Amino acid sequence: MIDLYTSPTPNGWKVAMMLEELSLPYNVNYIDLAAKDQATPEFLTMNPNGRIPVIVDHDADDLVVFDSNAILFYLAEKTGKLLPKEGAARHDVMQWLMFQASGIGPMQGQAVTFERYFPEDVPAARKRYHNETLRLYTVLNTRLSDREWLAGEFSIADISNWSWIRSHRWARVPTEGLPNLERWMDQLRARPACERGLNIPPSSGRADMAKSLGSAMTTT
Amino acid sequence: MIDLYTSPTPNGWKVAMMLEELSLPYNVNYIDLAAKDQATPEFLTMNPNGRIPVIVDHDADDLVVFDSNAILFYLAEKTGKLLPKEGAARHDVMQWLMFQASGIGPMQGQAVTFERYFPEDVPAARKRYHNETLRLYTVLNTRLSDREWLAGEFSIADISNWSWIRSHRWARVPTEGLPNLERWMDQLRARPACERGLNIPPSSGRADMAKSLGSAMTTT
Repeated sequence: MIDLYTSPTPNGWKVAMMLEELSLPYNVNYIDLAAKDQATPEFLTMNPNGRIPVIVDHDADDLVVFDSNAILFYLAEKTGKLLPKEGAARHDVMQWLMFQASGIGPMQGQAVTFERYFPEDVPAARKRYHNETLRLYTVLNTRLSDREWLAGEFSIADISNWSWIRSHRWARVPTEGLPNLERWMDQLRARPACERGLNIPPSSGRADMAKSLGSAMTTT
Repeated sequence: MIDLYTSPTPNGWKVAMMLEELSLPYNVNYIDLAAKDQATPEFLTMNPNGRIPVIVDHDADDLVVFDSNAILFYLAEKTGKLLPKEGAARHDVMQWLMFQASGIGPMQGQAVTFERYFPEDVPAARKRYHNETLRLYTVLNTRLSDREWLAGEFSIADISNWSWIRSHRWARVPTEGLPNLERWMDQLRARPACERGLNIPPSSGRADMAKSLGSAMTTT
């Protein structure tokens, strides 16, 4: 059994979608970001960075793994699924996973911050992160022009990138004019396991999602 | 033989240090960021994201890998070095590698931008990224309080994080008061292979480094 410590945020949904796609049994432990559950001594023992999600795999000597993309990688290696075991296809997935880790996640996160949470309006900063996020979306749109998924078969790279891009409206970054990206988003939406993962943990609606997104992404 | 396409920036140095640590033969192809070499059709064929570094491994059917951390992972798997092959130790390295990819890199990069390149002075934004970068340094300092390296033996996680943190003065983020972090930085500085990697490609001095850092980190 796996214990998942999570909240309704893009990084949390990644892991819930992955666990659902793999049909692995797991317990959900809700971390209330507004209540600073992620800053308790117990939580910091698991992840000294104080961020969700975290898993504890009780079938692997209670191994603890933090960071959403490190968890996707761990679960892919544990099960031998959603990441090719060798060769060029494996590293293709890894480079598009890293594209999310260092690009889509941080840049879209800053776009949300300056659009919605920053204490003052800084148009030049909003423009910076809006343009960079849109540029990254455009890279993916081109990438998807001649293939179904980002890297070979459906993989952890698709789960990771989509978990953020599906919230593009919250960052006020459009996907209109990016038909390949939108088609790919439709494919992901049509996967029952992804749909289930997006409701774990259950969100009490838009306001709750907004609050959680804000807490997760606003780091100062 | 491996072809490395790179510039004197933190993400470029990561891969040069890795290749030197592994004693792998490679050719250096200098990408002039100021001249927009990274935006040519030839370069975009290798990395559609238009960012250095990129490698082409001619001993593996001309496999192309982009993204500095994806390249570290590829080279570790290729050689069986600097990343344990299985077990808890492997995933410990991967989570601290991801800590760099989604934390240290993007946050320190934004700190540099708002300290040095942004068209207007935004004290609240400077404070945001300064504080977040310092918080991440503090997490590493605590992590290093009872161990020599970030995750077990010397690994790709150390190379990746250090390649950025060593430029902390450029981001105007101090390491004073973080003795474990400073001791770890000294250990990395003392490695001859890392020292060699930091001069590949050769930089014409502070001004050139500054220009390159600015080009690499300023994305809008």
